[in-house]
Parts: sequence; C-alpha cells; structure tokens
Amino acid sequence: MYTLGIDYGTNSVRALVVRCADGAELGTAVVNYPSGTQGILLDPRDHHLARQHPGDYLFGLEKSVRGALAQAKKTRGFDATKVIGLGVDTTGSSPIPVDAHNVPLALNPKWRKNLHAQCWLWKDHTGWREAAQITALAAQHRPQFIAKCGNAYSSEWFWSKLWHCHTVAPKVFAAAYSWVELCDWLPSVLAGVTDPRRVKRGICAAGHKALYSDDWGGLPDKEFLALLDPALADLRDRLYTQAHDANESAGRLSAAWAAKLGLPAGLPIAIGEFDVHYGAIGCGVAEGTLVKVIGTSTCDCGVVSASKTVPDIPGICGIVPGAILPGFYGIEAGQSAVGDIFKWWIETVCEGDAARHPRLTKEVAKQRPGQAGLLALDWQNGNRTILVDPLLTGLILGCTLHTTQAEIYRALIEATAFGARAIIERLREYGVPLDRVVCAGGIAEKNPLLMQIYADVTGCTMLVSGSSQACALGAAVSAAVLAGAHPDFPTAQKKMTSLKKIAYQPKPAAQKTYNQLYALYRQVHDSFGGLNKSADLSRVMKDLLALKN
Amino acid sequence: MYTLGIDYGTNSVRALVVRCADGAELGTAVVNYPSGTQGILLDPRDHHLARQHPGDYLFGLEKSVRGALAQAKKTRGFDATKVIGLGVDTTGSSPIPVDAHNVPLALNPKWRKNLHAQCWLWKDHTGWREAAQITALAAQHRPQFIAKCGNAYSSEWFWSKLWHCHTVAPKVFAAAYSWVELCDWLPSVLAGVTDPRRVKRGICAAGHKALYSDDWGGLPDKEFLALLDPALADLRDRLYTQAHDANESAGRLSAAWAAKLGLPAGLPIAIGEFDVHYGAIGCGVAEGTLVKVIGTSTCDCGVVSASKTVPDIPGICGIVPGAILPGFYGIEAGQSAVGDIFKWWIETVCEGDAARHPRLTKEVAKQRPGQAGLLALDWQNGNRTILVDPLLTGLILGCTLHTTQAEIYRALIEATAFGARAIIERLREYGVPLDRVVCAGGIAEKNPLLMQIYADVTGCTMLVSGSSQACALGAAVSAAVLAGAHPDFPTAQKKMTSLKKIAYQPKPAAQKTYNQLYALYRQVHDSFGGLNKSADLSRVMKDLLALKN
Repeated sequence: MYTLGIDYGTNSVRALVVRCADGAELGTAVVNYPSGTQGILLDPRDHHLARQHPGDYLFGLEKSVRGALAQAKKTRGFDATKVIGLGVDTTGSSPIPVDAHNVPLALNPKWRKNLHAQCWLWKDHTGWREAAQITALAAQHRPQFIAKCGNAYSSEWFWSKLWHCHTVAPKVFAAAYSWVELCDWLPSVLAGVTDPRRVKRGICAAGHKALYSDDWGGLPDKEFLALLDPALADLRDRLYTQAHDANESAGRLSAAWAAKLGLPAGLPIAIGEFDVHYGAIGCGVAEGTLVKVIGTSTCDCGVVSASKTVPDIPGICGIVPGAILPGFYGIEAGQSAVGDIFKWWIETVCEGDAARHPRLTKEVAKQRPGQAGLLALDWQNGNRTILVDPLLTGLILGCTLHTTQAEIYRALIEATAFGARAIIERLREYGVPLDRVVCAGGIAEKNPLLMQIYADVTGCTMLVSGSSQACALGAAVSAAVLAGAHPDFPTAQKKMTSLKKIAYQPKPAAQKTYNQLYALYRQVHDSFGGLNKSADLSRVMKDLLALKN
Repeated sequence: MYTLGIDYGTNSVRALVVRCADGAELGTAVVNYPSGTQGILLDPRDHHLARQHPGDYLFGLEKSVRGALAQAKKTRGFDATKVIGLGVDTTGSSPIPVDAHNVPLALNPKWRKNLHAQCWLWKDHTGWREAAQITALAAQHRPQFIAKCGNAYSSEWFWSKLWHCHTVAPKVFAAAYSWVELCDWLPSVLAGVTDPRRVKRGICAAGHKALYSDDWGGLPDKEFLALLDPALADLRDRLYTQAHDANESAGRLSAAWAAKLGLPAGLPIAIGEFDVHYGAIGCGVAEGTLVKVIGTSTCDCGVVSASKTVPDIPGICGIVPGAILPGFYGIEAGQSAVGDIFKWWIETVCEGDAARHPRLTKEVAKQRPGQAGLLALDWQNGNRTILVDPLLTGLILGCTLHTTQAEIYRALIEATAFGARAIIERLREYGVPLDRVVCAGGIAEKNPLLMQIYADVTGCTMLVSGSSQACALGAAVSAAVLAGAHPDFPTAQKKMTSLKKIAYQPKPAAQKTYNQLYALYRQVHDSFGGLNKSADLSRVMKDLLALKN
C-alpha cells in the first residue's frame, strides 16, 4: 500500500510516492512554476509584493504526480491501483480570491493579468499597514485574538492580505465571492468541490493565520471585522464556520482528477496543512522535539499535548490545537529569511552567480568564530519571531577596510543562527519542552558548515531528517493514517519517518565565543527591535574588536 | 621666479614647479613608492599596521623633482636657475626612527626588513592601546595637554606610535637615537642636516601630534612621559626644544642634493608642514574658510586669528597657533577614511575591479536621497572627528532582500557626507567662523555626484580648488614667501591660488530629506559612539522605511 504526498513550495511543486509499511520513497518529481521570476510575480516598485499564478499550481499538479507515479512504476510490485490516499501541503498564508464556483479569479481572462487577483504568496508583505492596524484594534477590542500569536498580527497573514486587497484593488475584492487558502484550495480541487462554502478548511491555516478558534466560535466576529473594514464583515458569511484537524478528510478524489493523474477515483484526501506542518510530521515531531525546516526562510514547529496548558508566549506567532498533530497544540515560529539572505548577499549585492556559494562556503569554513569582528541582524525580510515586526531591516556592523565578502557571508549565517537561538530560548523560557532538534530542508542537507554553526550557536545537537522530502512525506503519512494503513500518527511516524546518521554536536570552544557574540547580538537586536528603549551600545564595537584580537 | 612644492602623499610623491607671479604650474611629476602594497607595508595579521620604507621617499624625491623640472623646461623662459626656493609637505603623524646621524634605521641593512624600523605611516593604528592610556593619564595628570585635541590622544599620533614601538620592538626603540616626523625629516635631508637635534621641527607636526606647546615649555615634561614609559622620558632630550611656524626656514639646499636634483645649491627650504596644512594654504585658507582635502581620508583645516580666543572644542583634534599660517590658530579635523571606504566596498567586498567605480557612480546618480532606505556609519577606519575613537567600526543598516551594490555604495558616500556635517556643526557650535568651504583632492575634482551630495547634506556650497595639486602648491607658496617673492602669505595666496568655476549649490528638496537622514545618522552615531548611553533606536529602521516610501 502506498500514499502520495504533494508539496507546494515557494518556487516548485513536488509529488512523492511513499510505501506505507516503511516510508520507502518510490518515486518523486518536481515541477517549477512557469510564471514570473522563479514562479513568483513581483512588482519592481514595491519589494513587499509577492504573488503567484494559480494556474501554475494545476499545471504542476498533473505533471508532478504523473512523474512521480512513472518513476514509482519502475519498482517491482508497485502500480497506481495500490495507492490508497493522498495528502497536500502548501506554503501559507497564501490566500486566493475565488468566484462562487471555487475558481480563482486569476483563471478568468478578465483578471488574468491583475496582480491582486492572483494567489497572495506567504512572503507578500504589502499588508504591513493593515497588519499594524489589526494588531492595534485587536489589542484594544479583542486582546484574546492575538494573545496566542505573540500579540502581533502579521502582514503575511490572511486578514492583512484580504484587507489590503480591498484597499488597493476594490474591484478585485468585489469580484471575489470568497477567499481560500492554497492548502485548502488544492485538496478541494482534487475532490471536485465547486462551492467555496463546501471547501473543507484545515485548522492549521485557519488557526495560525485567520484568527480562527473554538474559544470564540470560529473566525473573528463580524463586529470586530467591521471595525477593520465593513467589507471584511460582509465576507465572513462566505468564508467558513468550521475548521478541521488531520483526523478529518478533505474529500475523495474526483473522477475527473483521477483520470488526469492516473489514480483510482474516490481515494481519501488528507486535510490540507502548511508545508512545514506536514514537514514536522515527516521529521517525526513529538513532544520535546523542535523541527526546523531551513530553506529560503525557516519555520520551526513543536507540539505540546492538548491535555496540558500552554501559556501565551510573547513573540511566538501561533499556538493552535490540532494544527500539526491531532491531540496536540501546534506551536509555530520562524525566521522570515534565511537562505534568501545568503542568496541576496552573493547574487544581488556582490553580483556573483550561484556558483559563488560553494567557493565562499569554503572560505567561510576557514574562519574562526568571532575572527572577523562582525555582527549582523538577520532582518532583511523583517523579523517574524520573536519580534513579529515586518518593518525591521538588515544590519551589518564591525566592518573595517579589510572586511571581505566571505567574512560578511559568515556573519550573515551566524545572524540567522542567533535568530534561531532567540526562538529556542523564548520557547524554553515559557516551559515548552525542547530536548531534540530535527532539521529538514535544502540547507540542512547541503550545508554542513551552517549546521555546525547552528549547533555551536544554539548549544543543541542538530539532527537531520532522513527524508529529503519531509513535507511531502508528512502529507503522505497523513494520507496513510486517514486511509487506515496505520492506527494513529505516532505509529505511522515511527514506521514511515527516519533520521540521517549525521548529527552536528556543539563544540565547546566555538560555543564559548558564540555565547559572547550572542550577548552582543541581543543588545543590538533588543535595541533596534524595540525591546530595550534605553540601550547602551557604546561597547558593542569595542567588544567585537576584543573578540577578534 | 619659480618655487618647487614637493608633496608626499600616502601612495606617491609629487613635485610641482610653480611661477610665483601667478601660480601657473609649469611642470609636475608623480612617483609611486615602490615598496609594499601601493607603497604601504602591511601585516595581514593586524589590520591596524601601516608602515612605509624611508628609502622610497628618497627614490621618489630625486625622480619627481627631476621630472617636474624637465617638464617645466618646455615652457619658454624657465630654467632651473630661476627656482628661488622649495617646500615640502608630507602625511603625518608619520614618525621615523633615526640614528645619531639622522639616518633612518630602515636604511641600515640590519633593520631593513624590520617593520617597526620603518616610517610609521599616519594611518597606522597599532598604538590604540597606548593612545587610550595616554588619554587616561593626561586626563588625570595633565588635562591641559589634551584639552586642545578634543580630550583624546589618537593612536595615529607621535607618542602612541613611539610608545607602542618600545612595547613591541624594544630593540628597534633602543637602536633609535631619535625620532623625526617625515615632514621635518625630508627638509632636513635636503638641507644636509646630519644630527637629529639640529633638524628644524615644524610647529604643525609638533603641536598637532606631539603635544608640543609654548604654554608648557614645548614637549610634555619628563615627569609625565615617565608615567607613560621611562624610555619616553629618556628620549625627550634627544628630540627637540623648539618648533617653528612657516616664517622660519628649515635650512638651505645642500650641494649634494642640489646636484642630485639639478637645482642651485643654497636655496631656502620652507619649514615642513603636513600635506593638508600646506594644502589649505594652496586652497586659499583664511578666517571663515574651511578647506576640505578629500581623498583616501579627509582632512579639514580652518584658521582663526591668533589675536582671538579659541575655546577647547570637544572632539576636534587640534588647535595649534602657527600650525598652518603664521599669526593664526590652525584648526584641524578629519575623517579617518573616505575614498578608502569606497575602494573597500567595490574592490574588497564586491571583488570588482577599479573600472566598476564609474559604472556604479552612474547607477548611484539615478537614486533619490533616501530611496534605498539605507543608513551607514563611516567608521571602517575608526572615527577621528568628532568621536576621536579608532576602536569604532563601519555599520550598514536598512538592508532588504532587494538592496543592491549601488545602493550601499550611495549609502557609504552619504555616510561620509554626514561625517563631514558633524564636523562643520561642531566647529560652528563653538564659534569658529565658517561661511565658505573649499575642497581639494582627487575626489573633489573627479566625483561631482559626491560633491553634490556633500552640498545637499551639509547645506554649504562646495567650492573646488583651482589647482589639482593644492598641497604641493601650498608648499610652493610657503617657499615663495620665504624666498621673498611675496611680502606675506595673504598676498602670496591671492596671487598664486585660485578656485575652479564650478560650485556645488545645495538643492532644497534633497536637503530636506538629508536633514531627516542626518537626524537618524546622529541617533545611531551617538549611540554606538558613546555620546548617548540610553538610546532609543526602535524607530530608526521604521523611519528609514518611511523615508523610502
């Protein structure tokens, strides 16, 4: 018996065929989104904007699933009739304006070219003003709404994006019958759902991004939404009243899509979750384990039994029951840019080609911690955790006339490691058990230097997911549980997920230096980030020089 | 009648033949120093170190003077017998350890390769620990010593360097009979002086760098020097008791050097001054005029009549009677790196060749002030004025994932302009008259974009020196006054110096944005620089983004 996991990343979609008995990966295929710049629609006048054409998702769906199945068929004993279920994960919050038939406006020729009618990609920050207003209004009128998301509503999230759309593109907003998160929309397409109100919505997107909670009867009440914008209050009736965890199915594979994909019709489809949430499952997340998916950005996931009480944690953007694993609080944190920062440095600033990364990595490997006297803040795309502030920017300090490209590259890697440490410290401070870190994502697999720096900076052993497709694998695990191949998630995870042999252990000498550098990072971080409004930074540059000498 | 000005810069020496009647420049020749990296001996393990081989100065002297004379000879009416005097300016504080015959130790094969036996170039900061100790000891025991140099003794200066030499290279220190500033040593070589105690020392180097003042009987007293290091107290007797302004001659050209250079023996030699001091004269410095020599670093010079009282000005490194023009206080300030910062950014960090400068300058010209949302501190080589702290380093903030190489280049240009404004504001705050700014140096001539930014940031019209060799011209002016071609300096300056036609006027719209950016610069400057030890920097990044939008 096999299941299919389909993982929609920022630039491409991947399908993966997995054997339920042992997690063996029989076939996989990746399809890049054809539109825009590496699949992203940009606006050169506004660096906050990032959209995606929904047609790219459908194009990639058929091509990737057929590719993965074709590869799997090379394994003796496999054929497509043995696939018993499928699961989908996507980026998020990536809401799509749809018409009354659950068809994205952007698939209608009338709106085809309109940037606001596309999918509003997770990394779109155009709603930063709206996010600040939502934060302020919630603080005043509904403090409970934002208490579980670090007391700050993000510009990356559902309501900021919808409100901003109404502000800048009222015609698009008016043409949209409803809005559906990408992770809910794709399962609904596969299930042949043609009414947005009948789309099965996942608690993952609803709880983390749309202020959905059973505590207040679902989505924010109309009265509050009207304080933001009456158009949002009107929309509420055309959204949803119930969101579901992964114990619930999103529907069954329609005959039309079964034919397109070459799969049996009627297969159960797992509820949609965000990529990192299913990725956490694919990495074996359990109480005490932090899963870090390190790629263009980083997302951190942990779980705490729903039988316990989890306090509000300042700066942690989401604590949602059932969001990752049924029966557990899902806790999510993250860094708005990681790999993107390295790419920015080498390719945009230094005008190097991608081939420069490995060369610089070699040079970086020769440097000792603290040797360059540099310190950076990893806020080139704002700060998600623990400051929850998109209006922060990157900083590099400690430059002399001898500072090199490779030294700054290392400082940027270290900055992201310091950001990771700030998250781990914040979680522990508020009693979240955390004794194991499992990493996944391209950087975790391909950059041992970065992984060692993360171990040295955080003081945690860095384990690496056994699968290179942890997100797709997690979606396949969810499908396997739903289809009855395993009795529950822990059993399915034990059978279907694994770790790589390599483990990055912290080195005491480096840890010592990094403890000092982290203290300086926090001084600068807390000052520019607003946690300390009477900072004495007069020693920072001198202390960096002292560490260097 | 003609005089010769000989200008020893950081990387090369230039000789210039000038007509006394009208300042016409008949011949010039530049010789690069042959040793080290662009004439500088470096130590890859210590970026503070910068030395120069004294033999390079003699090599360049003969070659540049002969070259300039050969070119001048092409002008009808000129021949070398019509040269009536010569003047020399050099970088500083650049002290040289010499033996009892006024010969640099580094010219002795025994010490030839020893970095500590060379000339300690102005930009050598290895004595930063000693500088801090001198500052602390003077504050406690002789506050008057440092009151006129911003209450801080610099690592670039005479005693920091000598003391550091005794600490790290006691054998070199012991072998040195005396130490002579480069600007005093070269005239003494030309005059055939073979005893360091008979070298005519200029008040310029003595007063600005060696704590020499008539107020306390010359150099610091032995008791104070012994508090630093008894070896310095011992040395005092082998230094000098009297320093002179430009009314005094450094001697007359020896027969040996007259033969080498092809000049008449016995010519009067002007007292040695630093390059920018003679440069100020060559730019027409007078009360109310600030002269900025903008090159790898920037030096600012002003004068105030000796009949007035000039208060101590915090952070201004030197207020010395007679240092520039006889009869005036010379006031000196500066920025430790300007052109060096641009070179560092493009050539070292971005790994571009020198050809990238003009291309980037074009891109920078297209940007509006504030457009990139960036802010930088110009401290890659420490801060000279107004913080007087070599242990400060460069900073760049406001980076997003879209920030480009050219945007950071502009931010670095702006940072040096903000540094220039901080100096102007400090001088005015303490009553130094300043209603005219005349710029000289390669950057002032070749980079109109930078000059316009300086005008916009400072709100001052930027005038440009008529001569491209203002330092050498100033030395020639001094020689002309000494030789009697003109009755006094103002008359000689009026006849021999000029301005270019171009004048950069501040543009009101840019000024408005830069006033806001400068306020942010000062917040960050004052915080990292230690002027404000309870800073609220939480708005800086947000304000930069607001200026950008």
